[in-house]
Amino acid sequence: MEEFIQIAKKVADEIEKKIKGENPTKFGEEICIGADGTPTQYIDKVAEDVALEIIGKRGNVLSEEIGFIDNGRKHTFVIDPIDGTRNAIHGVPFYGISVAVGKKSTEDVLYGIVKNIPTGDIYEGYKGKGAFLNGKRIEVSKDFSDPIFCLVLGESGNERTWKLANMKSIRALGAAALEMCLVASGAIHAYFMGKESLRVTDIAASCLIVREAGGEVYNANGEILNVPFDLDARSSVVAVASPHLLEVLL
Amino acid sequence: MEEFIQIAKKVADEIEKKIKGENPTKFGEEICIGADGTPTQYIDKVAEDVALEIIGKRGNVLSEEIGFIDNGRKHTFVIDPIDGTRNAIHGVPFYGISVAVGKKSTEDVLYGIVKNIPTGDIYEGYKGKGAFLNGKRIEVSKDFSDPIFCLVLGESGNERTWKLANMKSIRALGAAALEMCLVASGAIHAYFMGKESLRVTDIAASCLIVREAGGEVYNANGEILNVPFDLDARSSVVAVASPHLLEVLL
Repeated sequence: MEEFIQIAKKVADEIEKKIKGENPTKFGEEICIGADGTPTQYIDKVAEDVALEIIGKRGNVLSEEIGFIDNGRKHTFVIDPIDGTRNAIHGVPFYGISVAVGKKSTEDVLYGIVKNIPTGDIYEGYKGKGAFLNGKRIEVSKDFSDPIFCLVLGESGNERTWKLANMKSIRALGAAALEMCLVASGAIHAYFMGKESLRVTDIAASCLIVREAGGEVYNANGEILNVPFDLDARSSVVAVASPHLLEVLL
Repeated sequence: MEEFIQIAKKVADEIEKKIKGENPTKFGEEICIGADGTPTQYIDKVAEDVALEIIGKRGNVLSEEIGFIDNGRKHTFVIDPIDGTRNAIHGVPFYGISVAVGKKSTEDVLYGIVKNIPTGDIYEGYKGKGAFLNGKRIEVSKDFSDPIFCLVLGESGNERTWKLANMKSIRALGAAALEMCLVASGAIHAYFMGKESLRVTDIAASCLIVREAGGEVYNANGEILNVPFDLDARSSVVAVASPHLLEVLL
């Protein structure tokens, strides 16, 4: 496993370097059609290319733009080369990289890393061994006196989420994996995406990180989330510091 | 004026250093009652103390916690020692420092600086001479094909803002001055705070930065905003890349 962890970390580091060396005005150029049928933007393509070159044939790859690459290996790297693409393209300083290593679905992910590019913060989860921010152990918040909830609003929201927008402290940050990591680190108390639109590439690493930090991840029906390594599967996601928050959100 | 600019920059740099050297678990401790009648939290107090020591008697000071200090000078430093205090306390990586230099109200502010602490980004506005991000000139976005709007939701919102939560791309980032600077840099297209609750300390620097970048700042009645240097005045704020966005928002 150690080899896979080192590869995943290198993918995160090298994508960060590549992106920081690029001219941001090019980030939004549409350059081809991705595996999910939507246009691929320059920033996603250059980031994914970095990942593919580093991984080579040392594992299978499931990534947002290129889809599944079967290298005949037991383990698959599940990658969102840029988490928060719209933020990155526009210049909102909250976007990152997500890489997970597992076999078939989110429940067997053994390692996940999410890196915040503008701040350099690194969130990691090791199955059965805890979650970490910049190498220091993190846990979900147990103080619910002043909770912050991250909602996915706008066209990615639904009637339910728009109604929640009047709860006490609401944020909408625009990068799913990073927002879930904020649940893990105790910065926020829940992340709520009511619509069935997130792919396994968006959440594979952060699901493990939230769970290893003592939180839990559900879908909007309140079922514990387990998503297969398949880009066609789309999920709603409710990541919480404590299951009692489901009563507030669902 | 050059001396005041150097002092304001030094305030931003030294607050950043101080905050980065502190233990974040102390940020939320309530240590006294501020000039606005609400409890002052540790992070605001240490940041303000840094500002007061640097400025000394070289200008008057209007700051969130201590209120107005009249040093018999023509110019006043208008300071929000921490913009996005709740983000900083909880660990959401989007908070900063705001310092403006002027005489009586936002319309005579000559220089403003807003620094994003987690990323180190520096936004500046020089009256009549433009706005800058990390020393490079910035302008508001003129591309409205994929707009992003920042709303202040939760208990700081009102019926109007909650209704806007279903517009295309919505963010709620939790730090007024920095969100306004994102309008200036072209990252987002509008910042909307519908409730009359922002103080001049929150917006003095960022109003100038938005305007010098080619945008405009209104209140929620659609009137061009001009706020006196007085902590008792509270305003709604609508900062836009283009006045035509008022039709969408108001």
